[in-house]
Amino acid sequence: MSKQLGIYYSEYLQLNKILDAQELESEKQGAVAHDEMLFIVTHQTYELWFKQIVFELDAVIDVFDDPIIEDKKMGRVLHLLARIKTIERVLIHQIDIIQTITPHDFLEFRDLLIPASGFQSTLFKQIEIKLGIRREHRIAADCEFFKSRLKKDDLKSLDHLETKETLHDLTDRWLSRIPFLKYKDFDFWKSYQNSVEQMLDKEHAIIETNVTLTEREKQFQTNDLIMTRTKFESIFDEKKYAKLRAEGNFRFSHQGFLGALFVNLYRDEPMIYTGFRFLTLLTEIDELLTNWRQRHAVMVQRMLGTKLGTGGSSGHDYLTATTQNNRAFLDLFNIATFLIPRKDLPDLPDELVRALGYFFRGEKDRLEELEM
Amino acid sequence: MSKQLGIYYSEYLQLNKILDAQELESEKQGAVAHDEMLFIVTHQTYELWFKQIVFELDAVIDVFDDPIIEDKKMGRVLHLLARIKTIERVLIHQIDIIQTITPHDFLEFRDLLIPASGFQSTLFKQIEIKLGIRREHRIAADCEFFKSRLKKDDLKSLDHLETKETLHDLTDRWLSRIPFLKYKDFDFWKSYQNSVEQMLDKEHAIIETNVTLTEREKQFQTNDLIMTRTKFESIFDEKKYAKLRAEGNFRFSHQGFLGALFVNLYRDEPMIYTGFRFLTLLTEIDELLTNWRQRHAVMVQRMLGTKLGTGGSSGHDYLTATTQNNRAFLDLFNIATFLIPRKDLPDLPDELVRALGYFFRGEKDRLEELEM
Amino acid sequence: MSKQLGIYYSEYLQLNKILDAQELESEKQGAVAHDEMLFIVTHQTYELWFKQIVFELDAVIDVFDDPIIEDKKMGRVLHLLARIKTIERVLIHQIDIIQTITPHDFLEFRDLLIPASGFQSTLFKQIEIKLGIRREHRIAADCEFFKSRLKKDDLKSLDHLETKETLHDLTDRWLSRIPFLKYKDFDFWKSYQNSVEQMLDKEHAIIETNVTLTEREKQFQTNDLIMTRTKFESIFDEKKYAKLRAEGNFRFSHQGFLGALFVNLYRDEPMIYTGFRFLTLLTEIDELLTNWRQRHAVMVQRMLGTKLGTGGSSGHDYLTATTQNNRAFLDLFNIATFLIPRKDLPDLPDELVRALGYFFRGEKDRLEELEM
Amino acid sequence: MSKQLGIYYSEYLQLNKILDAQELESEKQGAVAHDEMLFIVTHQTYELWFKQIVFELDAVIDVFDDPIIEDKKMGRVLHLLARIKTIERVLIHQIDIIQTITPHDFLEFRDLLIPASGFQSTLFKQIEIKLGIRREHRIAADCEFFKSRLKKDDLKSLDHLETKETLHDLTDRWLSRIPFLKYKDFDFWKSYQNSVEQMLDKEHAIIETNVTLTEREKQFQTNDLIMTRTKFESIFDEKKYAKLRAEGNFRFSHQGFLGALFVNLYRDEPMIYTGFRFLTLLTEIDELLTNWRQRHAVMVQRMLGTKLGTGGSSGHDYLTATTQNNRAFLDLFNIATFLIPRKDLPDLPDELVRALGYFFRGEKDRLEELEM
Repeated sequence: MSKQLGIYYSEYLQLNKILDAQELESEKQGAVAHDEMLFIVTHQTYELWFKQIVFELDAVIDVFDDPIIEDKKMGRVLHLLARIKTIERVLIHQIDIIQTITPHDFLEFRDLLIPASGFQSTLFKQIEIKLGIRREHRIAADCEFFKSRLKKDDLKSLDHLETKETLHDLTDRWLSRIPFLKYKDFDFWKSYQNSVEQMLDKEHAIIETNVTLTEREKQFQTNDLIMTRTKFESIFDEKKYAKLRAEGNFRFSHQGFLGALFVNLYRDEPMIYTGFRFLTLLTEIDELLTNWRQRHAVMVQRMLGTKLGTGGSSGHDYLTATTQNNRAFLDLFNIATFLIPRKDLPDLPDELVRALGYFFRGEKDRLEELEM
Repeated sequence: MSKQLGIYYSEYLQLNKILDAQELESEKQGAVAHDEMLFIVTHQTYELWFKQIVFELDAVIDVFDDPIIEDKKMGRVLHLLARIKTIERVLIHQIDIIQTITPHDFLEFRDLLIPASGFQSTLFKQIEIKLGIRREHRIAADCEFFKSRLKKDDLKSLDHLETKETLHDLTDRWLSRIPFLKYKDFDFWKSYQNSVEQMLDKEHAIIETNVTLTEREKQFQTNDLIMTRTKFESIFDEKKYAKLRAEGNFRFSHQGFLGALFVNLYRDEPMIYTGFRFLTLLTEIDELLTNWRQRHAVMVQRMLGTKLGTGGSSGHDYLTATTQNNRAFLDLFNIATFLIPRKDLPDLPDELVRALGYFFRGEKDRLEELEM
Repeated sequence: MSKQLGIYYSEYLQLNKILDAQELESEKQGAVAHDEMLFIVTHQTYELWFKQIVFELDAVIDVFDDPIIEDKKMGRVLHLLARIKTIERVLIHQIDIIQTITPHDFLEFRDLLIPASGFQSTLFKQIEIKLGIRREHRIAADCEFFKSRLKKDDLKSLDHLETKETLHDLTDRWLSRIPFLKYKDFDFWKSYQNSVEQMLDKEHAIIETNVTLTEREKQFQTNDLIMTRTKFESIFDEKKYAKLRAEGNFRFSHQGFLGALFVNLYRDEPMIYTGFRFLTLLTEIDELLTNWRQRHAVMVQRMLGTKLGTGGSSGHDYLTATTQNNRAFLDLFNIATFLIPRKDLPDLPDELVRALGYFFRGEKDRLEELEM
Repeated sequence: MSKQLGIYYSEYLQLNKILDAQELESEKQGAVAHDEMLFIVTHQTYELWFKQIVFELDAVIDVFDDPIIEDKKMGRVLHLLARIKTIERVLIHQIDIIQTITPHDFLEFRDLLIPASGFQSTLFKQIEIKLGIRREHRIAADCEFFKSRLKKDDLKSLDHLETKETLHDLTDRWLSRIPFLKYKDFDFWKSYQNSVEQMLDKEHAIIETNVTLTEREKQFQTNDLIMTRTKFESIFDEKKYAKLRAEGNFRFSHQGFLGALFVNLYRDEPMIYTGFRFLTLLTEIDELLTNWRQRHAVMVQRMLGTKLGTGGSSGHDYLTATTQNNRAFLDLFNIATFLIPRKDLPDLPDELVRALGYFFRGEKDRLEELEM
């Protein structure tokens, strides 16, 4: 290049830093373990992607942190959440790469890294916290690790982060203020409860009159119905909900949970569609993180058998526990319990439906209407 | 199961048919070629997925075939298109499976299948046609194959299908009737053309006054600018556009292309966001089909070298040609040529922006407004 | 096609059967649920792939069912196992497709399918059994389902299948007869045990003399060392092993487990490399099946919340239990526990190493040697 | 952490460097373009993976650079090549991430990066060169870019790299010295040529005596047969081969190409199986790189339309050209042309087959044999 105008690829990307940050512990100790390079590089790419996810989460939280969320910004929010999903898929895929280190080759440098541990990734912890997983939701071992494994500064900054509003908190608040659920003399939840009860009564009648059922089957189906009824009561009765929530069965506020249910039921209304997409993306981000944890847990099992992890963690068992437990949006997985078939859904008042549509639908005459 | 109530898995799925439809040609001829089973099963799963894609395309076309497309149905349309993408990704992934047949193992049964050919998949042809690829867009060899490779009935039904409106046609029509581009004394395209010209003039001035450029570089950059100007003229000048379209450089009508450009430029307006998602999904469906074709072409190259395909097709070369050529929505890939940075975009009149938002934004007072 | 010579694509693939096997239960009952088509098609592709996996497993079992396994067939075995892995990856990927059915849309036809259940896939059960999961390894609910959910014929044929030798059995037998572990006055396991003890003694000395450790840390590390010692004893002491095996902690015979360990330790010897690849592929097939189960479990959680599955199964919880439990080759994941670093490995006698190499290494002079 | 013993995660991974290397050009110029962060991070992860691929290629080249390649090292070589494939798959997958930058959002910072270009990634060039793509194999535009786009030091180091032996060169040399193709009075290639001729003669007879063929069809099939004969001549006749090689139709030496063909034909012999896996992995590494290039080309088309790339390259067209052209192991894709069915393969002399097997097959009596 005769003379350089402007930017050069390697300088723009600061490759001098990036590509000069792989120092093999095994080399320092005199015997290069070839696979340690892969171990380092893989973890570094993970950290880069974690940084990116935090960056996107911050942008989403920033939008939702306003008292009124501008519709105009929702498209962008959906886009960034979908991006996080795309990154998560690559994070899962990368496990295939790290698994090309065989357990025996891992032994060549594993002990040199003690007590460093993936647990010490503060960016990963930031992702968990920003999504909505606070210390209070973690299992004991997980909480213990914060104190025993992290440097003071890292711990302090995570402690501080937990005092801030999470995406879970903001989503809850946003769902809680869905308007129009009471509208003139229409009370949505009263209607919904009626529909549910009619549905359950009808199912009860079917069981009672079904002559082909044995007594045992009749009993079984009746019990199932009673259980279903109890479940619905837990969301229709604010106090029961509060109790269950206190016990950790729900995370959203009562209004928030009902809002999420409503959005799932009436997703086809144009104005609600965006909210439905938003909740679906949160569900999927949570699901993909869960998939990643499970892959990670099985990988550790294969890599270490029943040995302890480099950080002294019990490896597979601990990871399996967090897979089941560290779920920011588990409530959204439970929504399905409370859906009823479309045909049984209460009709929304016409006026409301109209309000939920676009006022301007691309028909020319509607524009005139608007101008008036 | 003491007695059967209702539906049984294998009957519901008609597994007796599905799992009894693998007859090895090599077995009939006396020497089982183990890998022929995989060859058959893989193709059968492809055909099942093709059926599903056709099913989804039909549902989308059905919505778009109405003179007014109900907003309420757009969420569903986006959902089905996203589903097609998801299926396409699996179609691509399945190439990994068929590639576990080595070229040498393929030789064990390849000749027995002559002249059968994947070209004879009428469902795949249906997908191409329903998306918008008609005979007129195909390369000669491709057209020739319709006559030489297909049974009369298959050919006839595809001929008939080509007389119907495709998703490309319907999208074009829908894009063409985007209203409000001329609104009172606001003429969007005039404004846009002004913005483009100012942008290009500014760039020209920068080149002219840049003392660090050599004559050769200045010449190069000036030429590039001229080329860009010419490109923009091709969309601002209806006649030039018509000429280029006649030569196959554009597929959408002039209004349709401008509509697609507008949607890309103002995607953040809530009412336009859905349209933007729609176009993006079409782009991605086209892209994934292209990826599939390319993977297929390289697979054939590896499987057959320079031999002819089982249907006598020249294999790799033919497939590479269709990869470049059979693109229903190539126009959407060219949109990028005509985008200008947000800061240079003409502002839409306030009244119009308001019309493009939700009338009802979840603020309580707006509801009152509505009631009046 | 003027006249047909030979085979036609759609006839070869029996597409008349395959593409005519989708009958929507919802349609029969008067209201088409659009997404039921996808539900059917996805399950049918799953069944086709299950058939293929069974086909490949049979071929592998066939090779291993001989008293002497021909080296010449091992390449083929590895190839087929790798193929199963590739198929499993697509099976996992397909979950993305079925998840495009939202919980609410699933409700439109879910009740119509009761009590059909994915549990009733006998091909999937065949895969589990052929790999090595018999009734005795299953959790109670799983066993119960065999009786309550399957038709008599299906149950009977699975019962019969369980009486046959599984891939796990055959692998165990093959590993048990690895020769040369005692060779002249070389006793491999005695040497290995010595190496392990030296390694553990050295670690113990390090802990004892490490002045930087607190008492508590010293105690913790000492305990860990004791646990490790106990683990090694469980494989060096045949009786302890037998006891642990009886309790379900090991599945392989003692000789088989040691064989697997040896193969992992000396994988670089050309003759052992193939065996190492074989064990690795079994590990990965097991791991991918586990990944599939986990994805499936989370999918069901999202689809049904805490509702019961169509077959009345408790859905997510049941599936999570089988994810942890139905592991044919869990022993291979535990091998890692007993590996020691290469530098501590006992050297094999030269004569033995020579025997484990190719006799003919492409050196010309060796050919001469051979001719003599 | 009360006091730090040993290594800390973030220090080990030098995260201070890695996570502090993202400086947005748009921010420097006063208006942050949100998506520029993703653009930088994605490229940085690419560079990290490129470094890893180079690291693995070096290890493989190192093994092959010896006059005699130790069998013991071949397992490792296969493992590292499989690892490269796994990484390549992730590289392809990452394109999904960068494509979440819409063309319009890319415009927000694209001009700021001029004239930086992905072409300037010297690590990617190193991968190409180490695999075997030298300047002489590139299209003109590609060669031109070396001079016009790269800094002097970068160019110089790549120039130097091209003087070294590539993996292609070493593979060729290794294939060329496969022994035993002439063995006593057995001349493999003479036998193979006989088999081919018999096969072609038989096919000719079938065409001639097939009364159902029209004249035109007979002509077509005869021509095809002649072409096939000509192709086989090109490998049996050293001079023809040399001529075609000089024209760029082959890259391997004549002996190397024949060696590769032999390995593909007799892959089941234990001693050859490893070589077959080696060639297959090279084929797949080449194929995955091709897939990546194609995905990249289509991505650029969607991102830029017909605009020039940031480096002034013609983008899509240039990339499509390199996709077709920059193939290190295209010869291995052409092998399929010259395979003949197993039943027509010449039998190898017993003595040779025995030499190609393991001398020691796990049978006890063979051990005795060895001891003698």
